[in-house]
Order: sequence, then C-alpha cells, then structure tokens
Amino acid sequence: MQIDQIMQQSASAFEAYKQVKPAQRAAFLEAIAAEIEKQREILVQTAGEETNLPAARLNGEITRTTTQLQLFANLIKEGSWVDAVIDTAKPDSTPAKPDIRRMLLPVGPVVVFGASNFPFAFSTAGGDTASVLAAGATVVIKGHPAHPRTSLLAFTAMQQAISKTNMPEFTVQHVADAGITLGKELVLHPLTTGVGFTGSLQGGKALMGYASQRETPIPVFAEMSSINPVVFFPDALKSQAPQLAQTFAASITLGMGQFCTNPGLLIALESEALENFLHLLGAAIASSVPQKMLHTGIQQAYVKGRAHMLSQEAVTLVGETEKPVGEEAWPALVRSTGTAFLANQVLKEELFGPYSLVVTCKDKAELIAVLKSLKGQLTTTVIGTETDTAQWQDVIALQSTLAGRIILNQPPTGVEVCSAMVHGGPFPATSDQRFTSVGTSAIKRWVRPVCFQNFPDSLLPDALKKDNPQGIWRMVDNQFSR
Amino acid sequence: MQIDQIMQQSASAFEAYKQVKPAQRAAFLEAIAAEIEKQREILVQTAGEETNLPAARLNGEITRTTTQLQLFANLIKEGSWVDAVIDTAKPDSTPAKPDIRRMLLPVGPVVVFGASNFPFAFSTAGGDTASVLAAGATVVIKGHPAHPRTSLLAFTAMQQAISKTNMPEFTVQHVADAGITLGKELVLHPLTTGVGFTGSLQGGKALMGYASQRETPIPVFAEMSSINPVVFFPDALKSQAPQLAQTFAASITLGMGQFCTNPGLLIALESEALENFLHLLGAAIASSVPQKMLHTGIQQAYVKGRAHMLSQEAVTLVGETEKPVGEEAWPALVRSTGTAFLANQVLKEELFGPYSLVVTCKDKAELIAVLKSLKGQLTTTVIGTETDTAQWQDVIALQSTLAGRIILNQPPTGVEVCSAMVHGGPFPATSDQRFTSVGTSAIKRWVRPVCFQNFPDSLLPDALKKDNPQGIWRMVDNQFSR
Repeated sequence: MQIDQIMQQSASAFEAYKQVKPAQRAAFLEAIAAEIEKQREILVQTAGEETNLPAARLNGEITRTTTQLQLFANLIKEGSWVDAVIDTAKPDSTPAKPDIRRMLLPVGPVVVFGASNFPFAFSTAGGDTASVLAAGATVVIKGHPAHPRTSLLAFTAMQQAISKTNMPEFTVQHVADAGITLGKELVLHPLTTGVGFTGSLQGGKALMGYASQRETPIPVFAEMSSINPVVFFPDALKSQAPQLAQTFAASITLGMGQFCTNPGLLIALESEALENFLHLLGAAIASSVPQKMLHTGIQQAYVKGRAHMLSQEAVTLVGETEKPVGEEAWPALVRSTGTAFLANQVLKEELFGPYSLVVTCKDKAELIAVLKSLKGQLTTTVIGTETDTAQWQDVIALQSTLAGRIILNQPPTGVEVCSAMVHGGPFPATSDQRFTSVGTSAIKRWVRPVCFQNFPDSLLPDALKKDNPQGIWRMVDNQFSR
Repeated sequence: MQIDQIMQQSASAFEAYKQVKPAQRAAFLEAIAAEIEKQREILVQTAGEETNLPAARLNGEITRTTTQLQLFANLIKEGSWVDAVIDTAKPDSTPAKPDIRRMLLPVGPVVVFGASNFPFAFSTAGGDTASVLAAGATVVIKGHPAHPRTSLLAFTAMQQAISKTNMPEFTVQHVADAGITLGKELVLHPLTTGVGFTGSLQGGKALMGYASQRETPIPVFAEMSSINPVVFFPDALKSQAPQLAQTFAASITLGMGQFCTNPGLLIALESEALENFLHLLGAAIASSVPQKMLHTGIQQAYVKGRAHMLSQEAVTLVGETEKPVGEEAWPALVRSTGTAFLANQVLKEELFGPYSLVVTCKDKAELIAVLKSLKGQLTTTVIGTETDTAQWQDVIALQSTLAGRIILNQPPTGVEVCSAMVHGGPFPATSDQRFTSVGTSAIKRWVRPVCFQNFPDSLLPDALKKDNPQGIWRMVDNQFSR
C-alpha cells in the first residue's frame, strides 16, 4: 500500500479519534490489553521463535505491556494530565484582562518504530503506541523486521480492540519492510506530526535528519545510545564487594545485556578493594550462562565489537565465560585505565550485549575527567555508603548532570513504569532530553498547548469549562483546585 | 572578547547559580525590575531615539518588562512549577518497586537574541531572559543591533542587580555586533544548551540549522512568522460592522503593525454586509495617522513588500492613508479573492507593518480551503455572534488546529502575560509548538526532568524531600498534595 494513502487514512481517523471522550479512549486501551492477554500464548511462542528470548522473560514483558496500557487508561480517566490552566477575566484592570484558558491537545498522526530488544513493551502495542493513543492521536506502526510475525499478531489484537470499542478503523495502522525506505517515507510525509523510535544511534540520527529536512520540521523522540556509567565509591567497595559483584554480574548479563540501561561502564579509584571486587565480579560473569542474542545480526555485531574493544591499547580481560560452541553471546568484563579511556573514543561507545568496561582512575581528578568526557546517558548510578555519599557530593552532583535518571545503590537495569520515571537523557541517549519514553509522562510527546481566549463555556472543551465537569485538577488564577 | 571565553564564563557561573535557592533567585529578578524602574527615564529616552517608538508605548513596555520579572519571581517563590512527581517505594510488590522522584532542573547556559520590535519586553531584560534566570540557568544576550544603546543600558541595570544580590558575576552577559557571525558562533558553541529568538523566519531558520548541525543538537525556540488569520462570520458582519471596523483598524495600525500578532489576513464570505464592513474598515485605516517604523530598514522592507503585494494578480487596494511625505509607514488595507489566494504563495507571507489582506471567499468550501492552505500561526480569531458560532462549529474547530491561541471576538494584538497564555504555534509561527515564549510557562524551555531513584532525603533537592519543606504542590503516588 502507498504511504500516502496510509497517512491520509491516519489523518482522517485523527479527525474522529481526537473527539473521542477520555472514558471511551480509556476503554479502548483496556480492550487492547485484554486482546493481548487473550493472545498471550501464541504471542509468547511466536516471539520466542523470532527473538530467542526465553518464555519467562516474554511473559513478563507481555504483563508489562498490558500494565502499561492500563496505566495510560487510568491516566486519561483521571484527566489532570491535560495541564488545564485558567486565568479568568479581570474586566476592571487596566487594560482589561481577557479570559484565557489553556490545555494540551493532540497534534496528529504519529509514526512509531518498533524496537528489536522489546518485542512487546517497546514495539507494536508498546509504550510509544500506548502513549500516542492515550493522547488522542492516531498511530502508524512500522513493525521491527526482526520479529515481523509477532508484530503482526500484536497489530491484529489492536484491530480487534478497535472493532470491539467502535474506534475509527484507521486509528492504528501497521506497515513492515526489511529496509529503511519505508521508514524514511513515513517520517518525510507531510501529514506525519511526530515520531517515536527506540534503536541505534545511527538509526535515530537518520530519522532526526529526515525530520529536520522537512518543509515543516517535526519532533523525533529517539532513544538511542547509553553506556550507563556506574561509579563505585571506596567505602562501598571495601565493605560490600561480594554482594555488589553478584548484583552487577546479574545486571550486566540480564537478558544477555540487551537492555538500554545495561551498565556498560564501571568507574572506580584504583585500590586493593577494587581489585578484590573485580576479581569477584570477573568470576561471577565467567560463571554466567551464555544465551542466544535477539538475532544472528546482533550476535555477530557483539562478537565483532567485543574483539574490537579487546584490541584497543591498555584494554584487558577481567573475566569471561567459556567460549560458547553455538551462537550464544559470550559475556565478558574488561578493564582499562582512566588515561587510556580519556585518550580513546572507541572505549566510550556502546557495545550492545553482556559486556562491561571497568575504568580504573588514579585519583579523584581523573575520575572527574572521565565523567566529564562522557556524552549524555539514560542513567548513571552511585554505589556508595553513607560515608561515601557524604564525602563525594561533588562527584554525585556531576553525575546528575549526565543522565535523566540517577540511581543510588541499585543496578540501572529495571525501568519502573510509573509517573516519576524519566527514561530519557541528554543527547545521544535520546534526541530530546525534555521528554521520557517510559512512564505516564511519555504522553506529553504527542500534544501541544492550545489556549482559548474569551470563549464561552458552550464552545470550550470539557476540561476548560467553568464548572469543571470532569473534576480534574486545574490551575485557576494561579491556584490548584478541582 | 572571544565567544569561547564568554561561554566558559557562563558555564562556570551556571555551576554556582543553579544552586542559588528559589527565594534568592526571586530576589534577584525583583532587583532587576527595580534597577530597570530606576533607569526608566533614560531607557525610554534612549529607546525612543533608537526605535522611533513613542514614549507612551515605551513606558508601557517597561512596565510590562518589570511586571514580567515580578511574575517569574512569584512563580519560583511559589515553587510548584518544578513539576515534582514522587512514586514512593513499594518493597512488598513483585518485583519490589524502588522510590523514584522527579523534578525539573535547569540545563545550562542559554543564548537569547533580543528582538527588534520590543526593545524592552522581548529584548535584553525581556521575557526570554527573565524565564532563563527564573529557571536557574545563565544567559548570554545578543543585543539587537537596531537598539544597541538601549540594550547596553538594560544590561547595565541587570549588572547592578547581580552586584546588589550577590549573584555570580557572569550569570548574565551581553554581546553585540551588527552582523550574523557572533550569533552563529554562540549557537554553535558546545557549552550553549538552548536558544531563544524572536525575529524573522529567515533568521530563525538559520539558527535552527546551526543547532541541528552541532555534534550535540540543542533546542532553538524561535518565534518567527505569523499572519494571524481572522475569520469574520456573516451574522457578526451584518450586525456589528461599525464597531468591528474601528476595532480592527486600531489593531492593524497599532504600533504601526509591528506586532507578531498583527491581524494580517481577514477572511470572510462574499456578501453585501462584507462590502459594507470593508468600506468602513478601509475608511478607518485611511484616517489613521502614519508614524515612523522601528528603523529605516524595516520601513523600506515594508514599502517594497507593500508594492509587491499590490502588484500581484487580483489584489486591489481597499483603503490607505495619504502617502506620507517622510519616512512614515503608510497603512493599507488590500483585498483579493479565495481563488487568487489559493493560487499564489506570495499572498500567504507575512508583511511586517500596518497592513492587512482581505480574502473574500465565494462559499464555505473555499473558506475552508483557504484556512487549510495556511501554515502554522501564533493566533487565529473568530468574529461571530452566537448564531455564527452555533452554525460554524466545524470552521472554528479547524481554526483551533492552526494556531497556539484562538480568540473569540477580540483582536489578536495584546498578548497577556499570564499562566494560561500560549504565545507559540505550529511551524513556522514558532520552531516548537510545544512551548510558549510569553507567560510563566516560558520557563519550561530551559529545564529538563531528572529523576532520583532510591535516594535518601539528605541527598535529595528540597523539592523532592519527604516532608516537602518548600510546601509546594507535588504529585505523590498519583495524588496532588502539598
């Protein structure tokens, strides 16, 4: 089918869908969750065949996907997310102040690119799509070529939900191809108003480039690249080495390192305690169980990238599993020095897989230089006792400028879907650090504020009417109320 | 001075300034307002010499500037703008949910370009600068070359405030040149994290281009181009022609049309009532008093642009003042047809000055086609009685998709500085329709959300501490409270 026809259909559906009341939109999201739940077995089986991910993980991801849809349904039922702000008229002031009321309204058709590493939660019916539909916008999904059948099944479940809740037919559309032409055409199409993407830096930058070349530029929300630096402070290394080694070996190898928040860079000051910790961590990694990666292409890229890292000057192996006989991933911990890290750009790049690089710093100044040399990150982690956090406040403050999320004494893997989550960060972690792609705030990517001046109640959207018929929290004359 | 040194100074000042408590930041903004107030007389005199604007208007603009600073001071004293969201830990859920807390934090040094048409309210100490400083970011201001002495005086007042409130010396810096090199260098500098601009489409697009070429792209908030379409519905034209003619003649010629919300496009269905209204409006424009524009360059561009518009096919004059003898601006109302408008891109472009184009449409379909052919706008206005608004709901709904602000039965000139204001709109009205450059929400342009996971109270910013020491509105476990 022609892209133009698809986008025309999406734009027409938008005209109807944006007028669907929040309660009905919420019911639609809940119906999608229910249809996906119904198809759980076949979805898990198909995704397992296409991605090598184990059934337990896939089942967990389906639950995450349906939970996410329910959270967005709850958000729009509650309704305050539209950020209604009302300044009532002051006819007696000089000059007279008009009545001005503002709320967030959806922008139009959005294109969502499915991610390879989360066949459910960040793909066809995943967080991007859920947030678009919650916002009242329509979506065209480009299924990820690594799991085409899974994507089509998820889309079919969404079509069932459209039909059962009487939504406009083309509220959700699905396209697929193995190349990049289709994606480029979708981003360039004049009716597209926004793009959601989770994937490689190269892919995200290409989409950003297309978007900025358009006659009317549109925002691209790309979640791209992060090595999630973890700083281990001295007292914690001294007192907690064994449990830290277990926790981080598990985090580094979780899902064969195929998470965007994989801790790919571990930083610490040189010390005996560090050597002891690295010994334990290397051994824990070496005893992990190699598993297949998402697909052969990713596995090959990992093998090649791993070899490339190990070929760099002053990079040595700390621990690795036995070399797998088949296509398994071969987890590894490697190390280098602050000096080498500062001199070599290669070491700062993301290597997607069960791998982490330890950078040992000779003093605080070098540790700070290493942190300052980093690009934007999704997360950064502080591992420290109370003694450490009291002593290293300036380093912790520096860390908080690097990422969208700063974590104390927990591994960065595990991204809670909640209101406060920020899954985003300075470029190139994401294309726009002002937004998140996980959590309910993700809805803010697909809306714009519109203000109505001097409008009577009868012509205003419900959220802005005088008597607040939806009972939502609003800011009225600079006071919150509902 | 070298741009690099200036940006290094701004980055160093940022490290200190971002830690200044909200109450002290508010006192700083209030001190700027006080210093400007002290210099009112010399500021008005100097700006009058540089811009041709009358003293009454300049005095009003200074009041707007100081009011704006006070509003931002109030905003940060109240404190809820940081959008604190807290999801407390749920250790008993499976898996256990960590404590996650999010708030908005400033991004870093910002570059603000002064505007030519508002020497105070949108220039050196204007809305962009006030919002940057309120957010806790530092600013480098490029003074507008059309009023260099005014800009320097305003900067000097800000330096006084820095000194009196003990802010870091380089919290505010000021540069000036007559060309574009300096601006380009500022946008390209690696330490710059955001840009505010009010000016031409060409200028804004150039800045957007520089920003997207950077190794680390940054947001550019450019307010560029809008013709602010007004739709006059039939019943209003029939019943209110005389007062509408007075209101709109005043709005079109206000400040010699040098406002971004000048009503440059008037749209209506062909009718006798329309002809009567145009007769009155043309006469009112013809009887307005020509005044000098901001500077000779703008006046010459207006004269040339006016002639270019009048040379287009099917464009005729409705009314104009006598040709001025000197460098005054020569207000004019011209007209054309829907057919001609749809066929000719030139007619859709902004002509900066006391000018408006009437487009007469032969039927509703053509009126809708004219609206759909428009690019993004800052404002759009509905002039209609209750009969009209009941009958033309689909057209009004279409209008609301065109602009950031939709106005009923008031002229678009006059942009209230308040919480609900949206002074922004779809491209090319602005570069990013999700933000506003007027009103307290303008602060949102210079911040990003940062989330803290598993942090104890002692290490959290005040806004996120358990006991809410600032007493601000926050969302805690999905409930608003304070």
